[in-house]
Amino acid sequence: MAKEYVDINTLKYLLYQVHALDDLFGFERYEGHDRPSMDMFLDAIKDFADRDLFPFFKEMDDDPAGFDNGEVRVHEQVAVMMKKGGEMGVICGPLDYDQGGLQIPFMVHTAATYILDAANNHLPGYATLTLGAAELIVHFANQNLKDTYVPNMLLGAWGGTMCLTEPQAGSSLSDITTKATLTDEGYYKISGQKIFISGGDYQYVENIVHLVLARIDGAPEGTKGISLFVVPKNRVETDGSLVGNDVKTLSDFEKMGQRGFATTHLGFGDSDDCQGWLVGEANQGLKYMFLMMNDARIGVGRGAAAIAMAAYQASLQYAKERAQGRKISETGKKDPGEDQCLIIEHPDVRRMLFLQKAIAEGSLSLILLAAKYHDLQRSVSDHSEKEKYQLLLEIITPMVKTYPAEAGALAVSNGLQVLGGYGFCSDFILQQYYRDIRIFSIYEGTTGIQSQDLLGRKVLMNNGKALQLLIEEIGTTIAVASDYKDLQEWAATLKGKLTMIHEVLVYLKTFANKENYERYLSDANLFMEFLSYVVIGWNWLEMAYVAKQALDNKDAAYSEAFYESKIHTMKFYFKYELTKTNALAETLMHKEVLTQKMEKEFLV
Amino acid sequence: MAKEYVDINTLKYLLYQVHALDDLFGFERYEGHDRPSMDMFLDAIKDFADRDLFPFFKEMDDDPAGFDNGEVRVHEQVAVMMKKGGEMGVICGPLDYDQGGLQIPFMVHTAATYILDAANNHLPGYATLTLGAAELIVHFANQNLKDTYVPNMLLGAWGGTMCLTEPQAGSSLSDITTKATLTDEGYYKISGQKIFISGGDYQYVENIVHLVLARIDGAPEGTKGISLFVVPKNRVETDGSLVGNDVKTLSDFEKMGQRGFATTHLGFGDSDDCQGWLVGEANQGLKYMFLMMNDARIGVGRGAAAIAMAAYQASLQYAKERAQGRKISETGKKDPGEDQCLIIEHPDVRRMLFLQKAIAEGSLSLILLAAKYHDLQRSVSDHSEKEKYQLLLEIITPMVKTYPAEAGALAVSNGLQVLGGYGFCSDFILQQYYRDIRIFSIYEGTTGIQSQDLLGRKVLMNNGKALQLLIEEIGTTIAVASDYKDLQEWAATLKGKLTMIHEVLVYLKTFANKENYERYLSDANLFMEFLSYVVIGWNWLEMAYVAKQALDNKDAAYSEAFYESKIHTMKFYFKYELTKTNALAETLMHKEVLTQKMEKEFLV
Repeated sequence: MAKEYVDINTLKYLLYQVHALDDLFGFERYEGHDRPSMDMFLDAIKDFADRDLFPFFKEMDDDPAGFDNGEVRVHEQVAVMMKKGGEMGVICGPLDYDQGGLQIPFMVHTAATYILDAANNHLPGYATLTLGAAELIVHFANQNLKDTYVPNMLLGAWGGTMCLTEPQAGSSLSDITTKATLTDEGYYKISGQKIFISGGDYQYVENIVHLVLARIDGAPEGTKGISLFVVPKNRVETDGSLVGNDVKTLSDFEKMGQRGFATTHLGFGDSDDCQGWLVGEANQGLKYMFLMMNDARIGVGRGAAAIAMAAYQASLQYAKERAQGRKISETGKKDPGEDQCLIIEHPDVRRMLFLQKAIAEGSLSLILLAAKYHDLQRSVSDHSEKEKYQLLLEIITPMVKTYPAEAGALAVSNGLQVLGGYGFCSDFILQQYYRDIRIFSIYEGTTGIQSQDLLGRKVLMNNGKALQLLIEEIGTTIAVASDYKDLQEWAATLKGKLTMIHEVLVYLKTFANKENYERYLSDANLFMEFLSYVVIGWNWLEMAYVAKQALDNKDAAYSEAFYESKIHTMKFYFKYELTKTNALAETLMHKEVLTQKMEKEFLV
Repeated sequence: MAKEYVDINTLKYLLYQVHALDDLFGFERYEGHDRPSMDMFLDAIKDFADRDLFPFFKEMDDDPAGFDNGEVRVHEQVAVMMKKGGEMGVICGPLDYDQGGLQIPFMVHTAATYILDAANNHLPGYATLTLGAAELIVHFANQNLKDTYVPNMLLGAWGGTMCLTEPQAGSSLSDITTKATLTDEGYYKISGQKIFISGGDYQYVENIVHLVLARIDGAPEGTKGISLFVVPKNRVETDGSLVGNDVKTLSDFEKMGQRGFATTHLGFGDSDDCQGWLVGEANQGLKYMFLMMNDARIGVGRGAAAIAMAAYQASLQYAKERAQGRKISETGKKDPGEDQCLIIEHPDVRRMLFLQKAIAEGSLSLILLAAKYHDLQRSVSDHSEKEKYQLLLEIITPMVKTYPAEAGALAVSNGLQVLGGYGFCSDFILQQYYRDIRIFSIYEGTTGIQSQDLLGRKVLMNNGKALQLLIEEIGTTIAVASDYKDLQEWAATLKGKLTMIHEVLVYLKTFANKENYERYLSDANLFMEFLSYVVIGWNWLEMAYVAKQALDNKDAAYSEAFYESKIHTMKFYFKYELTKTNALAETLMHKEVLTQKMEKEFLV
C-alpha cells in the first residue's frame, strides 16, 4: 500500500500563494476566519483522512456496497464519515451561520473534501451529497421544510440525495416521468423510479432525504414542467417519530469502480403512499437543481483531481523504490555488471511521472480557481464585479468538471504503467484508482453533455462576454509572466493559443450563423479538449510565475526545489500537452463533415 | 449481453481483398490450401467461438482463476479450449506438416485466433502459449525433446508456457538469476522463481511444459549468459509415466482484468529435484526466445485489436437500440413533444463509434499485414526479397504490439462512454473489456520497452534500411491511391507525413550522432505514437483505395455501403487521428530537455 495520497505542500501553495485565499478574509462574509484557523481546519481534516478514510480504501473495494433483502449494506466507515464528518463541518461548512453552517470559504471546503477524496474516494460522497441536498432545501424550500430536515442532515444523522435520472431519462432530463399529484393535505403523492442514485440507501443513518425531480399532473412538456420535491425515506410525524414513506430500494448497481459508494435504484410510491413536499414554486425544479449543479460539477472535478493526485503519489513512491534496468551510457550500451538503477532515473518513467504531476496539480489549481470565483461572486458587492465572477465561473465549470476526469484517467493509466505488471495486480492500488476514476467522465453530465454546454451555451452567453472575460484573465497572467525573462517565451506560446481560440471560433461560428447548430456543435467534445488545454496551460503559467517570484524574493515557505519543480512542470506541460492544441485546431477547422447522420449508414 | 463480438465481413475483406491472402497459395509452402479450405477453417472457428467461448466470457470474469491448496483452479471452458482447440488446429496450425502441423498461413491462424480473442480473450492464451512453447522446442531443441513433448502439446493434452520474468527481472531480462546446474546424467538442476507466468498452472491438462530462461553456473553476466530449458511440471519416466518435477505454484496473481487467464508465480527446485533440459546451445537462450518473440508480440497486438473490435460491436449495438435526447433543430432548440431519437444519431456518439471503428479495424489491418510479412519472409526464395520482408516485419512489430493496446484502450473507453452510466455497471460488458485490455500495454515488453526497441534498434538497423523499406511501401500505396481523384488529397496528406518523419529523425539523430543516446531515446514513446499514427493512416488509405476500386468495378462481394464505410472511416481517421502527428512532431523537436535526470529532483 502506498504511504501517501496527497501533496499537502502543493495544496497549500495553490491555496495561499497562487490563488491567494487570504484575499477572501477581507470580505465581511469571511471575516470570522483567518489563515491559522483555516490551517487548523485543514490539518484536522488531514488527520481524519489519515485515520478514518485512507486505511479503508482497498477494503471498501474488496467488500463493496451490496443489496440484500431490500436493504443496501455499506462499509462501516460510512457511519464514521457521516458522524465525524458532520461534526467537523464537512457537511455544514460552506453554509451561512444562520443556516447552521460555518460560513467557511468554498475554497477551503473544496480543499478539505479534496483531501478526503484523495484518501478514499468511496466515502466523501455520502457527506457531500447530503450537503447538496441540504443546500437545495436551505435556498429554495419553506421554513417548515428547513426546520424539519436540515439540522439532522448537517449533523450527518440523516443523509441526502439528488434524484434526477430515470431509466428513460439520463442525459435527456426533459423526459422525466416521475409523477407528483397534489393532495388535499397539501403534500404531493409521488410515484416513479429513479436510477443511479448515489448514496440512495444505507444502514447507518436514521433517514435519507431525497430531493426528487418530478412532474406535477398536467405540467407542461419538457424541462418547463419539472418540479422539485423533498421526499424522505421516512416521513416525520407530528410527534417527531419517523414512519416509512413508501420509498423502496429496488437494487444497488454493481460497478467497475467506486464500489464502496452505493449507487441505487429507487422506487417511489409503489404502495401509493409516498409523500413529497414541493420545494419553492411548481415547474421551477430544474432551475433550482441547476443552480446547485455548478457546485456539484466542481465536486466531480475535485474528486477526479484527487484520484489523479493519489495515483501520482502511489506511482511516485514505487518509482523511488523499484530498481530495474540501467542508464544508457555514451556508447549506447548498458553494463550488466553495474547495479540496477531506480526506475525514477529512466526518462520514460520520468515522463509518465511528470505527466501525472502536470495533470494532477493543474487540475487542482483549476478546481481551487473555480471555488475562488464561487466565493468572490457571492462576496463582492459591486454589481459588475459580481457578474464578472459569475460569468467566469459559468464558463470554466464544464472544464472544471471534465478536464480532471478525462486527463485524470490518462494520468492514472500512466501511474499504473509505471508499475508494469504489478500495476495490473490487485495487490497494488493503482488498478483501483484506474477503475474508480472512470466514472467521473459520466457523473453529473457526461463529457459530451459538458461539451455541448461549453460550446453551445457558455461560449455564446451574453454575446460571448464570459469567454471574453476568461481571455482577459489569461491575458493578465501572460502579461505578468512576461516580466520574468525566463518565462517570456512560455508566455508568448500561451498568447499564441489565444489567437488560435479566436480562429477556431470564427470558423465554427460560421455554422451557427447559418443556423446549422448541429454542425456547429458536432465537434464540441474536441473544442472542450482544446480550450481545456489552454486553460490548464494558463494555470501552469500562473503557478510558474508565482514560483519564480518566490525564488526571486527568497521566500522560504517552500524549498527552492519545490518552486523550481513548478516551473519545470509548467515547461513539461507546455512541451508535452499544450502542443496538442495544434492538432485539435486543425481537426476543428477541417472542412469534412463526418459525424452528422447521413442517408447511408456507415457505422457497420 | 451484446449479440455480436466481431465483424466477419471486415475480417474477410482485410484478409482477401486488402491483404490478398490468395497470393500465398502460389508458394510451395501453402499450396495445400486454397480460399475455400481456409474459409471453412475460419467458419468452423467462428462456430467454436460462438458456442464455446463467447457465452462464458462474463462468467470467467465473475468466477476468476484462483489459487487454493497449492493448485490453480480455472474455469471448465479451459478444458474445452485446449481439447477442441487442439483438435481444430489452434495449436498446431502454423507448424509444418512434418512437425505435426497443418502448415496453414500465419495470416489465417492470426485471423482464427483473432476471432477467438474477440469472443473471449481469457481463453485463447492457454492454447497460443502452448503453441509458442512448442515452437521453441520444434525449432531449437533436440529430437528427443521434440518427441517427448511436442505431440501432446499440439493436441492440447499438455499445456506450455514461456517463463521469463522474475521478481527482480521484468523489463530488465539481463538480471535473471534462475540457476541451472549440469548433472552427470546430462540434465540440469533448475532453481529459482518466475512470476507473471500466464497459463502457468491449471487443472485441465496432464502436464505443463515450461520453457524457462536460466543461467548456467559460471555463465557470463547479463544477456550473454542466459540459456533456455525445457522444464516440465511433470517429467516423463522411461515407461512414459509422469512424476512430479519439483515445480511448485506459489500463487496466482489476482488481477484487474483477464481474470479467467491464470497468471502464476512458480517456484522451481524448492526440494532440489527440478530437472531441466537445455534447448539448443548454452547461453543462446535469449536469442531463441526473441526469435519467437515477434510472433508473441503480434499475438499481443492481435488480442488487443480483438478486444477493441468486440467492444465496438457491443457499443454499436447499444447505440442502435438506446433512445435518448433529440436532434438539434435549425432554431438550435429541441422539441420535447417529439419522440426521443436513437443515440446513434447524435454526432458526438457517432464520433465515438467511428473512433472505435477506425482504431479496431486499423489495428486488425496492421496485424494481418504483419502476419503476411511473416508468411512472405518464410515463403519467398529470393534472398533480397526475404530480407525485405524480414526487415519490414522487424520494424512494424513494435507498433503491431503497441498501437492496438494503447489506441485500443482509448477505443474501449469510448465504447464504455457510449453507454453512459450503464457502461460503468457490471451488468454491461463494456467495463470488462475496459479492464481486460489494459494489460496489453504491459504484456511481452511494455510500451516503453517497445518504443526503445523501435527508435533505438529498428529505426537504426541495417543503416536505416528497415525504415526505408517501410517508407517505400507507404509510398507505393500513396501512388496507387493518387490515381483515384477522390482520394488524391488524402494521399497527399499522408505523403506530407513521410516528410515529417524525415524531419523528426534528422532532429533526433543529432543526439545519437553526438553519442547522447539517452537524449535520443528520451521521447521514444512519443516517436512510437507518431510513427504508429502514420502507419495506421497508411493501412486506412490502403483499405480505402481497395474499397474505391471495388466500387468502381461494381464488385458485389460486399455492399456499396460497406465499401463506402471504409472510405468514410479513412477520412475520419485522417481528420481526427492522423492530425495528432502535428502535435507529436512539435513535441519531438522541442528543444527543452525535461525528462532526463537532473541534479535537483523536481519530482516531488
